[in-house]
Amino acid sequence: MSVSKRAGRMTVRKKTAAGKGRHLHAVIMAGGKGTRFWPLSRETFPKQFLKIFGDKTLLQNTIERLEGKVPPGNFIIITTQNQAELVRWQTKGVLPPECVVTEPEGRNTAPAIALAAFKKRKADRSALLLVLPSDHYIRDNAAFSAAVDAAIPMAEAGYLVTFGIVPTRPETGYGYIKSGKAPLGKNKDVLRVERFVEKPDAKKARAFLNDSSYLWNSGIFLFKAQAIIAEMKRHMPALHSAFAGIERQLGAPGEQKALEGLYGRIEPDSIDYGVLEKSKRVCVMRSDFGWSDIGSWNALEDVMETDAGGNVVLGNSVNIEPESSIIFSSGRLLATIGLKAMVVVDTPDATLICPKDRVQEVKKLVGKLKQTGREEYLLPRVEERPWGHFCVLDKGPGYQIKHICLKPKARLSLQMHNHRSEHWIVVSGTARVQRGDETFYVNKNESTYIPSTVKHRLENPGMIPLKIIEIQSGEHLVEDDIIRFDDIYGRSADR
Amino acid sequence: MSVSKRAGRMTVRKKTAAGKGRHLHAVIMAGGKGTRFWPLSRETFPKQFLKIFGDKTLLQNTIERLEGKVPPGNFIIITTQNQAELVRWQTKGVLPPECVVTEPEGRNTAPAIALAAFKKRKADRSALLLVLPSDHYIRDNAAFSAAVDAAIPMAEAGYLVTFGIVPTRPETGYGYIKSGKAPLGKNKDVLRVERFVEKPDAKKARAFLNDSSYLWNSGIFLFKAQAIIAEMKRHMPALHSAFAGIERQLGAPGEQKALEGLYGRIEPDSIDYGVLEKSKRVCVMRSDFGWSDIGSWNALEDVMETDAGGNVVLGNSVNIEPESSIIFSSGRLLATIGLKAMVVVDTPDATLICPKDRVQEVKKLVGKLKQTGREEYLLPRVEERPWGHFCVLDKGPGYQIKHICLKPKARLSLQMHNHRSEHWIVVSGTARVQRGDETFYVNKNESTYIPSTVKHRLENPGMIPLKIIEIQSGEHLVEDDIIRFDDIYGRSADR
Repeated sequence: MSVSKRAGRMTVRKKTAAGKGRHLHAVIMAGGKGTRFWPLSRETFPKQFLKIFGDKTLLQNTIERLEGKVPPGNFIIITTQNQAELVRWQTKGVLPPECVVTEPEGRNTAPAIALAAFKKRKADRSALLLVLPSDHYIRDNAAFSAAVDAAIPMAEAGYLVTFGIVPTRPETGYGYIKSGKAPLGKNKDVLRVERFVEKPDAKKARAFLNDSSYLWNSGIFLFKAQAIIAEMKRHMPALHSAFAGIERQLGAPGEQKALEGLYGRIEPDSIDYGVLEKSKRVCVMRSDFGWSDIGSWNALEDVMETDAGGNVVLGNSVNIEPESSIIFSSGRLLATIGLKAMVVVDTPDATLICPKDRVQEVKKLVGKLKQTGREEYLLPRVEERPWGHFCVLDKGPGYQIKHICLKPKARLSLQMHNHRSEHWIVVSGTARVQRGDETFYVNKNESTYIPSTVKHRLENPGMIPLKIIEIQSGEHLVEDDIIRFDDIYGRSADR
Repeated sequence: MSVSKRAGRMTVRKKTAAGKGRHLHAVIMAGGKGTRFWPLSRETFPKQFLKIFGDKTLLQNTIERLEGKVPPGNFIIITTQNQAELVRWQTKGVLPPECVVTEPEGRNTAPAIALAAFKKRKADRSALLLVLPSDHYIRDNAAFSAAVDAAIPMAEAGYLVTFGIVPTRPETGYGYIKSGKAPLGKNKDVLRVERFVEKPDAKKARAFLNDSSYLWNSGIFLFKAQAIIAEMKRHMPALHSAFAGIERQLGAPGEQKALEGLYGRIEPDSIDYGVLEKSKRVCVMRSDFGWSDIGSWNALEDVMETDAGGNVVLGNSVNIEPESSIIFSSGRLLATIGLKAMVVVDTPDATLICPKDRVQEVKKLVGKLKQTGREEYLLPRVEERPWGHFCVLDKGPGYQIKHICLKPKARLSLQMHNHRSEHWIVVSGTARVQRGDETFYVNKNESTYIPSTVKHRLENPGMIPLKIIEIQSGEHLVEDDIIRFDDIYGRSADR
């Protein structure tokens, strides 16, 4: 796609964005699991929460991309109960907390979109929904924005607009959209959809690359809330009537309870299979904004800079003659010789080594870890928290050592442990410690001791990060041995 | 080699061992560097100090193999200054400390053997020297013992006996000995040496495997001290006269000083090149006792049990369809998919990944680490000490965390640090702590604090290992910030 085409779309944006912005809502799907980017992502810390491309997470990138286009109050982030806290924390100060909507359980995309559509339509009969996965990569934000703007008139005309990406390689990991030849209206990039195509084999993928009618299905959609609800009524009547039945509770105090009643009954299904593949109202916006679903470690080489040997090398490593490999270290030294088309990912507690052509099996590997009772490797070792982060340095019988970093002014909850005592040694900054009835300061190189069953609170009163080493001693060292009395981050007792 | 042949040699042993044992001396060469087994071995912690095959180190195995054959007082372990303490500690209680002889600097095998030969001849004119590398593997100790016994008559007759191993594979990593066809005497396994052969290429190695006259040069030798000295006089006159010049100081208080004067002048050379390849008095004992020099990670598959896929898997790992690979984890999880003929070695601070056919380049890699100023990876992360061991868990600006384990009844030196304070938290066992003028006990889950410049001592008074977490704080955190006042292990102030 040439520069002039892009410029053309930019004009469309200027015409439409100002007037229609207030009806444009972003529906961000943030319920994914963290298996394919293991060991960097974990079950409770999936890909959308990772900072793969800089100092912001993929979720944060997704929101930032829409700055000035979608008002903060028009966002809705659909996530699950166990990820809601991470989402709230990562969107804090950017989006109002009520933007985060939790499904009782993940049920694939169709119920999530139904929930968003029913909620949004109730608030705004003209709502246009831009549905976006939270963990995708887009290189060219301006081109993306222009594509959305160009799609708005079609969505307003009642079409369900899918965004089809012009393929750049014979990719077997994506679904395709086979588009019609003739443009649907004036914009020659808006095309009818002939059919949706499953992930192809290598031969087919090569053929698709030479046929301009085949586009990658990006999982990004634009439609009126009313339009998708109408098409759901036609093609997924059970789902439609389920949500129609609780419409009164949506946005009201009874919403969460109503959803809990509902989700036990509804079948998981994707919006593609449930509606888009069946609807006559679907069209595709042919787009080229540098998109990737970064669905596996291999995707890094499409979206990151490679060296002369075609390698993506991140972190601490020394490599002799690597070729077309992805080498990622979180801190420890990776030393490699003659790697060819391999993926190596090193994290504080686990290292993955895998040929690039078998990265799809990482999921299987994660399954094997579960089977063999090694679930500790499915939890993150570096845990991000609203107040900073901690990292488990070592764990042995009766003890666990953490490196804890509190942001300036951060304050942990007033808490108590039944089964563990804690030693805190300050290695940087100054701590204010509340222990039982006393409050005192602990300076750099000093330490203090919190016996079990004593209420305590740790705070960073200073302007630089407070770093402490915590040694927990006790027979039962688990995160959930914590009783919270007061938490400035509004967290429930078990986190 | 058949069982009956072995039995035959056993008879020889019975005849000779009792009578000649007191003249049989073991010269153990323990000055090797730790590059080829990196990252498990390190520059200051080479292969001979590793427990690769169980609860004893290779050095300890080498000594144990001679139990009942060579009296403890007849051992001499030649090592270098910076490894002497490790050798003394690993031989403590087994060999008298004076067995450990330190060369001022490593000068390859010829000077080391000259030193041993001159020392031993001075003490025992009939001394027979069995020269052994400290870091080789021998599967069949009885066959080895029998081979030595069978070689004794030849050594006593003045021959320099090399031990040539019957090849079991086309090995390109070993030097070969081309033996003559006809036996030298009554024992048909004692043969003339036609010539020494450099490491062959793959084609030659395959040819050698089919020619019974080619044997692996094991680096194990047997000769009279007098005989090797005589041959040195002939073939390495400079080396001979250098040692002859300090003969009076050997075994006397001036020895170390004399050696220091000498080693600046002598050229490094191997005994093979300097004497054996030139001497007419060399013969070879054809042997088959399951020998390996374990010269690289690949050797593990020759000496350890492999699974159905031909893999050697040690430690914590989950592997999907590995083939002919060596997978070694020191604790963290290694998760691999589809490894083919790869070596993966994971240690607390560094991970090596390398195809099996390129393990020879590990040395190059270690060189690269040096060049790029990453010398920390050349030091061991788990440090063994006479009193137990410690492991650096984490290190950051102004702090370092160690996990320290003291054996029962072990006692650290009375010491002081100028630049660091230490926090000790007991996670297992009980500590007795001397701090300034106080002495007190610290129990499990308790902690104490040692400010800088305060004399202190840590002791394990109990019957179970004492495990503590030490957090050092300060601006200058190096091992050598230690002033020792009293040390039950007799160590100098800087270790």
